[in-house]
Amino acid sequence: MSGQFDLVRHDGDDRDRLTCRSCGFVAYENPKIVVGSVVAVDGGVLLCRRAIEPRRGFWTLPAGYMEMNETVEEGARREAWEEATARITLEGLLAVYSVARIGQVQLMFRAHLAEPGFAAGPESLDVQVFAWEAIPWDEIAFPTVRWALHAWREGLGHPGPPVFNPPEDARGTRPLPGAAMVGGAE
Amino acid sequence: MSGQFDLVRHDGDDRDRLTCRSCGFVAYENPKIVVGSVVAVDGGVLLCRRAIEPRRGFWTLPAGYMEMNETVEEGARREAWEEATARITLEGLLAVYSVARIGQVQLMFRAHLAEPGFAAGPESLDVQVFAWEAIPWDEIAFPTVRWALHAWREGLGHPGPPVFNPPEDARGTRPLPGAAMVGGAE
Repeated sequence: MSGQFDLVRHDGDDRDRLTCRSCGFVAYENPKIVVGSVVAVDGGVLLCRRAIEPRRGFWTLPAGYMEMNETVEEGARREAWEEATARITLEGLLAVYSVARIGQVQLMFRAHLAEPGFAAGPESLDVQVFAWEAIPWDEIAFPTVRWALHAWREGLGHPGPPVFNPPEDARGTRPLPGAAMVGGAE
Repeated sequence: MSGQFDLVRHDGDDRDRLTCRSCGFVAYENPKIVVGSVVAVDGGVLLCRRAIEPRRGFWTLPAGYMEMNETVEEGARREAWEEATARITLEGLLAVYSVARIGQVQLMFRAHLAEPGFAAGPESLDVQVFAWEAIPWDEIAFPTVRWALHAWREGLGHPGPPVFNPPEDARGTRPLPGAAMVGGAE
């Protein structure tokens, strides 16, 4: 690779790809997978207060980019450990969210603690369990966190098949509503 | 980017990343998403005979890499159109397979034809509907195709939540059993 890339339409392809000018290496850009979970604890849910940008200081689910050489289940458990020092047991797939705006697919699981205890990991300022009524909706980091929490709540006691994007943002293309989120409106 | 990359352990990270020597650009490598479907047609399933490597000449499901700026559902429908010239309706998520060996997550849907008709697209030599008893098991391209077909068959009439990897390859790390597949053994 020379580090100089051009957009090239290759034979049999239907879109341009970044292609190295000197060696022909094609840098395919594909959506990334985020794996995470809604971890139920004593009827409440575990949330992490982000220690890093974007949305530092806001609350999120234990979730993050899936790595190479792991399964989706391993990735979800790893993220719970890294962000919340929590050992979790996965119960099933809660949601598959496409966020086309940023090229993400989020796979969110239902989960519970496999053993007692949790604490802030290096990427979290704080980890707390919130009763449903106490969830700080106006300090939630991302729309998908709200979506997943509502999907979890609606499936309590009768978990169904995984849900997909809600109708109000069926493709995950709405910009992050920073202003609206401060108001806490869903 | 200079095109010269080193493996660097960055602050707060727990593994090395390819990092450009001159500008610091980090080339994160993450698993790619494959989206596809088991398309039921008159009680049988639609399969495509691959026109491209790997596994040219073998039968596969309409499936392929998810692209940027689409949802998982859009990607699955696009692949059915590209590979089988088929317009499909998705019914629900059939399976989530992690293939750690090659850094893939495959999201497979249950589907049926939205309108009559199908034909080989540019990446297929042939497209056919096979009754269950007629599926050419010894000419199936990939293990995940077998897994998805069996999951589809087991869920007929009572579709449940999506399945994950089968126990015999829980992480998707077994090499492609080329020799074994010719014999048709599962």
